Amino acid sequence: MATLEDIGVSALINILSAFAFLLAFAVLRIQPVNDRVYFSKWYLSGSRRSPRHSGNTIGKFVNLNFWTYLGFLNWMPGALKMSQSKLIEHAGLDSAVYLRIYLLGLKIFAPMTILSILILVPVNVSSSTLNFLKRELVVSDIDRISISNVSPGSQRFWFHLSLAYLYTLWTCYMLYKEYNTIAFMRLHYLASQHRRVDQFTVSVKNIPIASGHTISETVDHFFRTNHPNHYIGHQVVYNGNKFARLVRKKERLRNWLDYYQLKYERHPEKKRPTTRRGFFGLCGERVDSIDYYTQRINVLEKRIQSERQKILNDSKGALPVAFVSFDSRWGAAVCAQTQQSKNPTLWLTDWAPEPRDVYWQNLAIPFVSLTIRRLIITVSVFLLVFFYMIPIAFVQSLANLEGLERVAPFLRTVIELKFIKSFLQGFLPGLTLKVFLYFLPALLMVMSKVEGHLSLSKLERKTAEKYYYFMLVNVFLGSIVTGTAFEQLHSFLHQSPTQIPRTIGVSIPMKATFFVTYIMVDGWAGIAGEILRLKPLVIFHLKNMFLVKTERDRENAMDPGSIELSNSLPTLQLYFLLGLVYAVVTPILLPFILVFFGFAYLVYRHQIINVYNQEYESVAAFWPHVHGRIIASLLISQFLLLGLLSTKKAADSTPLLIVLPVLTIWFHKYCKSRFEPAFRKYPLEEAMARDTMERAEEPNLNLMAYLADAYLHPIFQSFDDVEMGEVRVDKNLTDIASPIDSELSSPSPLHYVYSYEVEP
Amino acid sequence: MATLEDIGVSALINILSAFAFLLAFAVLRIQPVNDRVYFSKWYLSGSRRSPRHSGNTIGKFVNLNFWTYLGFLNWMPGALKMSQSKLIEHAGLDSAVYLRIYLLGLKIFAPMTILSILILVPVNVSSSTLNFLKRELVVSDIDRISISNVSPGSQRFWFHLSLAYLYTLWTCYMLYKEYNTIAFMRLHYLASQHRRVDQFTVSVKNIPIASGHTISETVDHFFRTNHPNHYIGHQVVYNGNKFARLVRKKERLRNWLDYYQLKYERHPEKKRPTTRRGFFGLCGERVDSIDYYTQRINVLEKRIQSERQKILNDSKGALPVAFVSFDSRWGAAVCAQTQQSKNPTLWLTDWAPEPRDVYWQNLAIPFVSLTIRRLIITVSVFLLVFFYMIPIAFVQSLANLEGLERVAPFLRTVIELKFIKSFLQGFLPGLTLKVFLYFLPALLMVMSKVEGHLSLSKLERKTAEKYYYFMLVNVFLGSIVTGTAFEQLHSFLHQSPTQIPRTIGVSIPMKATFFVTYIMVDGWAGIAGEILRLKPLVIFHLKNMFLVKTERDRENAMDPGSIELSNSLPTLQLYFLLGLVYAVVTPILLPFILVFFGFAYLVYRHQIINVYNQEYESVAAFWPHVHGRIIASLLISQFLLLGLLSTKKAADSTPLLIVLPVLTIWFHKYCKSRFEPAFRKYPLEEAMARDTMERAEEPNLNLMAYLADAYLHPIFQSFDDVEMGEVRVDKNLTDIASPIDSELSSPSPLHYVYSYEVEP
Repeated sequence: MATLEDIGVSALINILSAFAFLLAFAVLRIQPVNDRVYFSKWYLSGSRRSPRHSGNTIGKFVNLNFWTYLGFLNWMPGALKMSQSKLIEHAGLDSAVYLRIYLLGLKIFAPMTILSILILVPVNVSSSTLNFLKRELVVSDIDRISISNVSPGSQRFWFHLSLAYLYTLWTCYMLYKEYNTIAFMRLHYLASQHRRVDQFTVSVKNIPIASGHTISETVDHFFRTNHPNHYIGHQVVYNGNKFARLVRKKERLRNWLDYYQLKYERHPEKKRPTTRRGFFGLCGERVDSIDYYTQRINVLEKRIQSERQKILNDSKGALPVAFVSFDSRWGAAVCAQTQQSKNPTLWLTDWAPEPRDVYWQNLAIPFVSLTIRRLIITVSVFLLVFFYMIPIAFVQSLANLEGLERVAPFLRTVIELKFIKSFLQGFLPGLTLKVFLYFLPALLMVMSKVEGHLSLSKLERKTAEKYYYFMLVNVFLGSIVTGTAFEQLHSFLHQSPTQIPRTIGVSIPMKATFFVTYIMVDGWAGIAGEILRLKPLVIFHLKNMFLVKTERDRENAMDPGSIELSNSLPTLQLYFLLGLVYAVVTPILLPFILVFFGFAYLVYRHQIINVYNQEYESVAAFWPHVHGRIIASLLISQFLLLGLLSTKKAADSTPLLIVLPVLTIWFHKYCKSRFEPAFRKYPLEEAMARDTMERAEEPNLNLMAYLADAYLHPIFQSFDDVEMGEVRVDKNLTDIASPIDSELSSPSPLHYVYSYEVEP
Repeated sequence: MATLEDIGVSALINILSAFAFLLAFAVLRIQPVNDRVYFSKWYLSGSRRSPRHSGNTIGKFVNLNFWTYLGFLNWMPGALKMSQSKLIEHAGLDSAVYLRIYLLGLKIFAPMTILSILILVPVNVSSSTLNFLKRELVVSDIDRISISNVSPGSQRFWFHLSLAYLYTLWTCYMLYKEYNTIAFMRLHYLASQHRRVDQFTVSVKNIPIASGHTISETVDHFFRTNHPNHYIGHQVVYNGNKFARLVRKKERLRNWLDYYQLKYERHPEKKRPTTRRGFFGLCGERVDSIDYYTQRINVLEKRIQSERQKILNDSKGALPVAFVSFDSRWGAAVCAQTQQSKNPTLWLTDWAPEPRDVYWQNLAIPFVSLTIRRLIITVSVFLLVFFYMIPIAFVQSLANLEGLERVAPFLRTVIELKFIKSFLQGFLPGLTLKVFLYFLPALLMVMSKVEGHLSLSKLERKTAEKYYYFMLVNVFLGSIVTGTAFEQLHSFLHQSPTQIPRTIGVSIPMKATFFVTYIMVDGWAGIAGEILRLKPLVIFHLKNMFLVKTERDRENAMDPGSIELSNSLPTLQLYFLLGLVYAVVTPILLPFILVFFGFAYLVYRHQIINVYNQEYESVAAFWPHVHGRIIASLLISQFLLLGLLSTKKAADSTPLLIVLPVLTIWFHKYCKSRFEPAFRKYPLEEAMARDTMERAEEPNLNLMAYLADAYLHPIFQSFDDVEMGEVRVDKNLTDIASPIDSELSSPSPLHYVYSYEVEP
């Protein structure tokens, strides 16, 4: 048990390290040589091409203007300066809404902190249970200001009870307001945005294969029949994995060619560079590099050509998936929200994700396979969450010194050295754990990919969900109840449902010090480390030194990163959970959380403005999940408080707490029906209004041309423009303009009339 | 504990009483005087107007043809004769699918019975645990053929385990096939049916009130804007409760008038009948009855007229609900499945129920009120299910003799008689319980109505759901674990999740005898009682004797009843639960259940063909619920078997059982996504095909006229034809044909073109 002084020392250390990070950041960010690391967003948006620097050669690499070193915190007001609407324009709605989560944390916890400190701390301190006990056992100072200090059966628990009610109401109120705002922002964003291809496009999965007809013909016939007034065309998805491999290889060869050409041009006096033809350029005949690569590229070019022809001509190259385009948002909204086929597992329509958001590999998974995959992944996630420690312990038991000696006997003499031995013994188990935890998010992402979601944004959301479960069980519960998650599961299965919240509830006040330290390390110093971007910085300079051959490589070496919702949302939600659980129990935790939310808000605002690359725009599609997790945290906090109070013999007040979860669940259901459709569907009223406006503004808009290439498989994007044109002709004109063969033509006597042709 | 002989005796009694019922039925049904009770369906369908009888006067009332008495079971082949397609035509798809549930029961349990008796009974009997114990405690014979007879830790449990797997697979397979068939039947029924108004109509709730405009104008403007190509008109719903009261009163008066007119016409020689004007005809001035009623009807007629004018003219009479009609099934399908407004709580569209299925009173509940009502009802149902016994016990404690004497001291002398006292003491508590249970379905129906569902079919489904929970807790669990439901809840909350299935699982084999008796009483004799229809028979004759004044009254006195899904589904599902739970544990229960399913199938088939009135057609919308409950029963049976085996120390085999619930849940999810959309949505492919066909067949169809009166509030249905015409003109022509005022007219430049006018 830590005393208040211990926590003070720990806080000092963490604050100092946070300051050290901030200082380092302040120095590093103004060096021109680091410009691409700390201002990559501006390079990506195209508003910066090269670092700003003073004239001379050294100035290219080091900032010599010493005045700029003084205001080392001046990035903070800079980060705050940009207005929300500007921010949405600059970094997308996702980023802006992500930042609002931190603000929401501040809004929820600031009044709670004040109230708790004004009311609960005096109530707890003036109780005297632990003073009596103090002689017998060591009690931490933090426990004196927590609920543990109130004697069992005391009437003072009414304070805690009424604050629990007040906090629940307050949290729900803030959540409601926030959901309302964000739903409005989403609709406003969708409405005010310029035309987007995904507003006119619907993804169709599980297209049945009709014998004798290509996928393209089937799609065309189906939508011409069932959406005669609005369908204008479609884009077939090709299985282009082999093609993509060839294109990547060509890229690599061209890069080498550029490198040698540059090398030769810089020093034309030297002899032309040569390369060995054999294995990785290590052996074989020596040839002229430039000629050699030019020739290899030409050969590859021909293979790419023929592969492309093969894909486009082979009817089996097309996957049973398509992107279908409509002449209006209304038509697309109708198609995305309705069931198409009598067999509900065929012709599954949904909104097409943004083109850059599509995860192409998953487009071709059939329905039955999908359901089986989900079963397997659900079971795996359950096992992963509860049995994660078992393989780690197993590997740790292998990765000890005896194991190493057995595998590599020649190391024995080294290992037996005392210094190295003790170092390894302390180091190996920790390393295995670290390695496992490091790969966890990647592992979860792979699992989500196996589940078969179609868009990157959904993959991130699903990964975030899995990670949240992991954090909840292994970090939150794992810290409170000692023992591995599996042992907890076992003990929970053998306890009564009323006993579980009690067991956990009782341990909660005792773990407050641990979580305070956790918040300081992970939330304060960790966030300061985030702004320093040490890893991308080092990697950028390493790449710059060893790998970068051309300007294009330098572009690639720049790793702006992104918000990475799959990682950041679960950690963020853990802070909400801690805050809500401890708000009534140990209020001294709240100021620490408040500092985290404030500081992280500043840091992430700065990073989003200056660094992160926006990979896609899901228009805040993650918000319902954030909302749901905060509600879950609220429920957990209520049940734990219920368990805690029931051990405190507060018989008068405890039963009143049961009302809270019921109300919270109802509130969640209400919000779900009130707001969630705004995130899942696209109202026809909105679609029609936008369509009408657009037709009035641009009566001669050629939507078909606008949509033609929107969902071209990325493998075709690497073509030159001429080739692109060819593909377009190959694919779309035949699909759209050719008369469909008589057998397939629609039995309906309806003419094929576009709605804008019906207009006067 | 009952021996096999006890059960034999009980079976004999029940079989005899079932035969007695059947005999009584055989005699009663062929009496012409009972014709309206036993063949009411034929009267309703119009194919029978009066009983078939032999010529003379006695023959009108009693069947004198003694040959017909011989074949007293000849209704059975008669019930089976009608083919399924004929049955669907005769009694609707709901009835046909309802009967399939019994067939499904037979299909699931027949192979199980054979396998269990061939394999499990020998395995259980040849184990000898209970033989050793027999000397010490009395063991029933039934326990000897149950799983209790297998000694703990025996390898014989592998038989039970593999049969549990086999039964789960078999049940899932049958469920899958059945779901597939019924989904197909539903789609086929929808496709092959003639035009139905609900295929073109969508119900719209929560219409926002625009100041300065009537509801009708708002609806018209909204749909003209957002569904310009398909919207053709709408029907406003009026708040007609007062009007309905007046109309009912007029009906009553006209009935009396008919009665007196008939009376006078039959005996014109007597003086004209007279009535007293005062309180219920008991006091006041004596007047000529015919004149009096004619005059009162005229007065009422005028009030009805003015009330109707008031409703139609008063803008506040219209509720914020409407039925919106489209020119095609496609248009209606699109509107029903999409979100209309930016605010997802406004303009809520859904398929309109069939006109006779609409529950008009619930149309006007606003969104927020709905969510609050659902919260309240959910909590109430929970309390009702678990605390049902408490008020009963309370009333029972009041309704004892002392209580009666205190309330009515004058009864003391009677009550103190010994015979009456003992009778009352045994009778009162039972009576209170019976009264409470009798009102339970009605109470649950009221709860469902408060929840605010729009259609009778949904109300029945929701009531069935609540009743199922009640049966599960109070009948199934209540019989297995002794004590009230509340005590069970209390003990479950204080047991671990692994302990609960054990506690219940262990008691299961012991309760087999009880359930065998239950099945015989409720399932055999009860079903035979159902076919006798004693209550409707008695009530019909009582009404005939005392109340029936006119031929119209005789029509009304006939109470054909209906399947009453809210009652019959939960009882039926209880049998599935019993069968699945006992299939592995005490297989001797299975033959009893098999007899129930077979017999009940025959009886209900007969009743559906000859008696029951079809109140509405929901096109088998209840099937997903039936499927879900059988899956739930399967899960319950698996968990209980798990609990039972874990007490039997069958450590090898028990863990393997955990796979079963996971697979079952996955199967349920798969079925849900595979089939459920067919019950919730209407595929556009189907809608378009039907539309196209219809347009080809009837190019000049005037849909507007067809739909005009479809959703007229039932209060207007009692008008004479002339009046109806008036209403139609008042309401629809103004709504559909009048030019909307310029301010409201659509901002879209689109012309208002019906799609059949676009056709060549």
